[in-house]
Amino acid sequence: MNQWIIRSQEIQPINKEWIQKAHRRLDSQTRPQGSLGYLEDVIAKFVSIQQKDRPQLEKKRILVFASDHGIEKEGVSLYPREVTKAMVMNFLNGGATINALARQIKADVTVIDVGVDADFTEHDSFIQAKVGRGTRNFKLEPAMTVEELNKALEIGWRMVEEAKEDKVDILALGEMGIGNTTAASAVIAACLKVQPTLVTGRGTGLNQEGLQHKIHVIEESIAKHTTHLDQPLNILQHVGGYEIAAMTGAILACAHYSLPVVLDGVVVAAAALCAFQLNPVISDYIFIGHESEERAHRFVLEKFGQEPLLRLSMRLGEASGAALAISILEAGVRIYNEVATFEEAQVANKKESVPNPQ
Amino acid sequence: MNQWIIRSQEIQPINKEWIQKAHRRLDSQTRPQGSLGYLEDVIAKFVSIQQKDRPQLEKKRILVFASDHGIEKEGVSLYPREVTKAMVMNFLNGGATINALARQIKADVTVIDVGVDADFTEHDSFIQAKVGRGTRNFKLEPAMTVEELNKALEIGWRMVEEAKEDKVDILALGEMGIGNTTAASAVIAACLKVQPTLVTGRGTGLNQEGLQHKIHVIEESIAKHTTHLDQPLNILQHVGGYEIAAMTGAILACAHYSLPVVLDGVVVAAAALCAFQLNPVISDYIFIGHESEERAHRFVLEKFGQEPLLRLSMRLGEASGAALAISILEAGVRIYNEVATFEEAQVANKKESVPNPQ
Repeated sequence: MNQWIIRSQEIQPINKEWIQKAHRRLDSQTRPQGSLGYLEDVIAKFVSIQQKDRPQLEKKRILVFASDHGIEKEGVSLYPREVTKAMVMNFLNGGATINALARQIKADVTVIDVGVDADFTEHDSFIQAKVGRGTRNFKLEPAMTVEELNKALEIGWRMVEEAKEDKVDILALGEMGIGNTTAASAVIAACLKVQPTLVTGRGTGLNQEGLQHKIHVIEESIAKHTTHLDQPLNILQHVGGYEIAAMTGAILACAHYSLPVVLDGVVVAAAALCAFQLNPVISDYIFIGHESEERAHRFVLEKFGQEPLLRLSMRLGEASGAALAISILEAGVRIYNEVATFEEAQVANKKESVPNPQ
Repeated sequence: MNQWIIRSQEIQPINKEWIQKAHRRLDSQTRPQGSLGYLEDVIAKFVSIQQKDRPQLEKKRILVFASDHGIEKEGVSLYPREVTKAMVMNFLNGGATINALARQIKADVTVIDVGVDADFTEHDSFIQAKVGRGTRNFKLEPAMTVEELNKALEIGWRMVEEAKEDKVDILALGEMGIGNTTAASAVIAACLKVQPTLVTGRGTGLNQEGLQHKIHVIEESIAKHTTHLDQPLNILQHVGGYEIAAMTGAILACAHYSLPVVLDGVVVAAAALCAFQLNPVISDYIFIGHESEERAHRFVLEKFGQEPLLRLSMRLGEASGAALAISILEAGVRIYNEVATFEEAQVANKKESVPNPQ
C-alpha cells in the first residue's frame, strides 16, 4: 500500500479528556461560563493537542510554499507567471504582507520553493526543493508524475519534522503561485464531487468573463482526467500543484507529530481537504485561520465542520489570514494561563437560580 | 440648549481625502488590489482619523467603566450585585480576562468607578468618580437624575481628554456592572423603537425563564417612562446606567478629539447608539471590535452600517472583544506602514487584461 495512505491511517485522534480538562479550567476562571464563545473551543483544542497544564504558544513559524502552475498558460490569472518569482524575492527581502504580519506576531517565515519556474540564489530561511519548474498544464496532461507527487508530499512532511525539532509551538501554512486558485478549485471540485462553477472564484480579481473562462478550463480538465480522480492522492497528481501537495504532506505530519497548525485560505484548504479525505482525524489538529472570499472555502469548512477565527473577506494567500489568526489564538492561550479562578480571586460564582423578587 | 447637544453638533466628519489617499497606498502595495478585504477599509479609516502618512498605533489604553444598577433588584442577572465590586478588585489585581488581554496587546487598563455600590481603597490606574451607589431601579423611577447624567457623561469625556494628553493612539471601551445588559437592552429598544423581546438576550447566561422575566421587566420599564423616551439623553437618564452614560460621553469626546476608539459588546453599543443619535458622524471614529452573542448588538451594527472585526460569539464585556480586535487593527497598521510597493519591490503589477490563449 502507498506509504502516504499508511502514514495517514496511523494518525491518532486528540485525547478527549484534555478537551474536558481545558473546559473545566476555563469554567473555573472569573468569567460567566462560556462567555468567550467559540474562542473557548479553540483554546481547549490547542490545549488538547499540546497536553500541557499551562500551554505554550511562543515559537511560531510560517511556512510559505511557492510553485508555478502549467495551467497558468490557459490565461486563468490576472497576473503573469513571473510574479511567483518576484513575490518569492519580495518574501525573502521582507517586503510582502506576510513579512509585516510575521514581524507583528514575532514569527519566523520559511519560504519553500517546491516548483517555481525561476532560479534563485541562496538565502536565509529559504528552502530550495524544486520538484520541477512548474507543474504541467493539467488541461492537457496530469499536473505531475506520481514520483513528483511523492517528492512534494515529502517536502511538506520534512518541513514539519524540522519545525518539531526546532521546538516550534505552532505552524501557519500559506502559499504563493500564480494559477494556484485554479488548481485548488479543481482539487476541491474533484474531492467533493461538486460542479466547478460552485467552487471557482475570482482569484486575484478576475472579472466576470475571466471567471467564466476559468470555470470552463476547470470543467474541461476534470472531464479529461475523470477516471483518475477516485481518491485524493490521484486528484493531487492530476489537477493539483506542487505547493498544494507539499501542504497536504505538511498537514498530515502536523497531525502525526501533534503540532497545532493554522490554515490560511482556499489553496491551503484544498491541501487540507486531501489530507482530511485520507484521514478525517487530521481535523483535530487544524485551526481555520480565516474564511476566504473564494467561495470554495465555505464548502471545505462545512466538510470539516469547523468555523474560522476571522471573517474579513480576505483573499491574499501567503498565510496572511493564518498569521493574523495566530494573534487571536495567542491571546486565548494567555487567557487560559493567566486569568484568576473564582477561588483565587474570591469572586462569588453564579447563583443557583435567579431570584424572582415577586 | 443642552451642552451635550451642542458638543455633539460640533463634531466634524473625517477627511474623506485621507480615505482615498490611504486606499491609494494600499493599492500600490505588493498584493492584488483589495485582497485584504474589509481589513483595508478598517486600515483606511484609522489612517483618515490620524491623518498621518505613516500612522501610529503604539500607545493603547483600555477604559473599563464600572457601575451598579438598581434594576438588578428585579432579579434580571445570574450573578449578585457584589460581583461588580469583586470584579473591579479582580481588574485592579490583574486577574481578569481583560488584564490578560491587555498584557497581550501591551495596553494599559484604567478602571473607572462611576457608581459601584462599594467602597474601594486607592489604587494605580483606578479612577474613583462615583456618581452614586448604583442607579435607581428604573422599573419604578428614573435610573438617574439629570445632574447625575451630566456627571456621568462628563467623566467619560474627561477620560478621553486625559488619554489625548497622554498621547494615546487608540482607546478600547468596556464595562462591568451586574444588571447592565438589562439597561443596555432597554436603551437600545427605546432608541430604535423596537420591541424589547427583539433586543434582549441572556446576559451572563440566563435560562429561558430568566430571559422571559428580563424581557418583561424591560417592557414594564419602557411603558413606565414612555413619554420621556423621546431622545437619547432622556433615554439614558430614565433607563440607562452610569457606565453607559459615561461611555456615551467618551465616544462623543473621541469623535471631538479625533481619537480612534474600539467598541466592545452590546453595553458599549448601547452607549454608542446614544452618541450616534446625537450625531451620526461619530461613526467615522468608531471601530466595531466584535459582534456579541447578545442579539441586540446586530440591530445596533445595522444602524451604524458597520461590520465587526471579530465574530466569536463572545459575551463577556470588560472590553475583551475590543482588546482582541486591537491586535488585528495593529497588524493592519503595520501592513500599511511596512509592505513594499510594486515599484519598490519591482514586482510586475497585474496585466491589463487576461490573455485568452485560444
